[in-house]
Amino acid sequence: MPNPSRRSETSRQAILNTALDLVADIGYPKVAIEMIASTAGVGKQTIYRWWPSKGALLFDAFLTLAGTPDGELAALPDTGDLAADLKLVLNATVEDLDNPRYRQTMRALHTEIVHDPALAADYHKRLDGPMREVKKDRLRAAQQAGQISKDADLDVAVDLIFGPILNRWLQQTGPLTPEYVDTLVDTVLCGLQPREAAAPAV
Amino acid sequence: MPNPSRRSETSRQAILNTALDLVADIGYPKVAIEMIASTAGVGKQTIYRWWPSKGALLFDAFLTLAGTPDGELAALPDTGDLAADLKLVLNATVEDLDNPRYRQTMRALHTEIVHDPALAADYHKRLDGPMREVKKDRLRAAQQAGQISKDADLDVAVDLIFGPILNRWLQQTGPLTPEYVDTLVDTVLCGLQPREAAAPAV
Repeated sequence: MPNPSRRSETSRQAILNTALDLVADIGYPKVAIEMIASTAGVGKQTIYRWWPSKGALLFDAFLTLAGTPDGELAALPDTGDLAADLKLVLNATVEDLDNPRYRQTMRALHTEIVHDPALAADYHKRLDGPMREVKKDRLRAAQQAGQISKDADLDVAVDLIFGPILNRWLQQTGPLTPEYVDTLVDTVLCGLQPREAAAPAV
Repeated sequence: MPNPSRRSETSRQAILNTALDLVADIGYPKVAIEMIASTAGVGKQTIYRWWPSKGALLFDAFLTLAGTPDGELAALPDTGDLAADLKLVLNATVEDLDNPRYRQTMRALHTEIVHDPALAADYHKRLDGPMREVKKDRLRAAQQAGQISKDADLDVAVDLIFGPILNRWLQQTGPLTPEYVDTLVDTVLCGLQPREAAAPAV
């Protein structure tokens, strides 16, 4: 006898994969729910039963792609060398953004969030908030190791370290090179150093 | 005898104002070219003759609103106190973003840019590029005054100082308070200081 919950999970995955394919192929604005339904071989009502909007479906598809279903975020690397660890993470992000499937979905997700407060709230609850905690955990470890000032505002630090890559990519203001990542991380960490450690290098 | 070029300028302004009103009232995604034309009392063809897309029209409307027609950008304030000058500018930006007419247009412009490479190119040529030069001019003056390291990468500095406000606002990741602006500017400037000036404050 077929297992209805397994069949349901199979349909769900088919819908998410179809959505990712269509977004990569023709761009998010041109993808319609009807199109996803007919390509995935499910009824339109099935999609509407599971997702309140095209944006909500996109977000779940993105989570599949990013390999981060709810509550399963990996910690940031901690080799003891904060600058090296952050550069590694940011260069990996730049590489992800070069992947067409990831790129189109990421662009679409970030523009949907701007216009859809419900999606923005869900995004922050399920992805951005937990991600921010993971990033702050790494910075807190550096703080305990005396590499970052005790007074540093870690939320501002996260914005400074992780924001510019996304900004530059979304707004297409310049190329994302390893040199850019290096200068970015070095400049920000310089400003976050404990004052004693920032003694003259001359 | 009526002056055709003046009549044409009047129509142009009416179209831009109507677009701003409609975007503020019902949101950019729901505004159609037909709607702008009929509300402004012009033919749809007039709009298509002057603008290649809804995004291009939006950008011109935004420039009207921002009071910065091409090539007329004011320099950033320079009182000699770089931190105070930057905080003044960023707090003024935060205030602009609170204005509903400005806010809706700004959101729409920034999401259109992500999906429309032609608009992105025009935006960078006519607004973001010149603005970036104005910002770098102020930082260069600080560099000459010995307040910023000679080695600092001014493009990275601009991204760090001016990016996080926009990011936080677009992605709705947190409130934009004067305290946030203060911490942001102080942290970034700390990282940009000449190494000699970053001596122990203890």
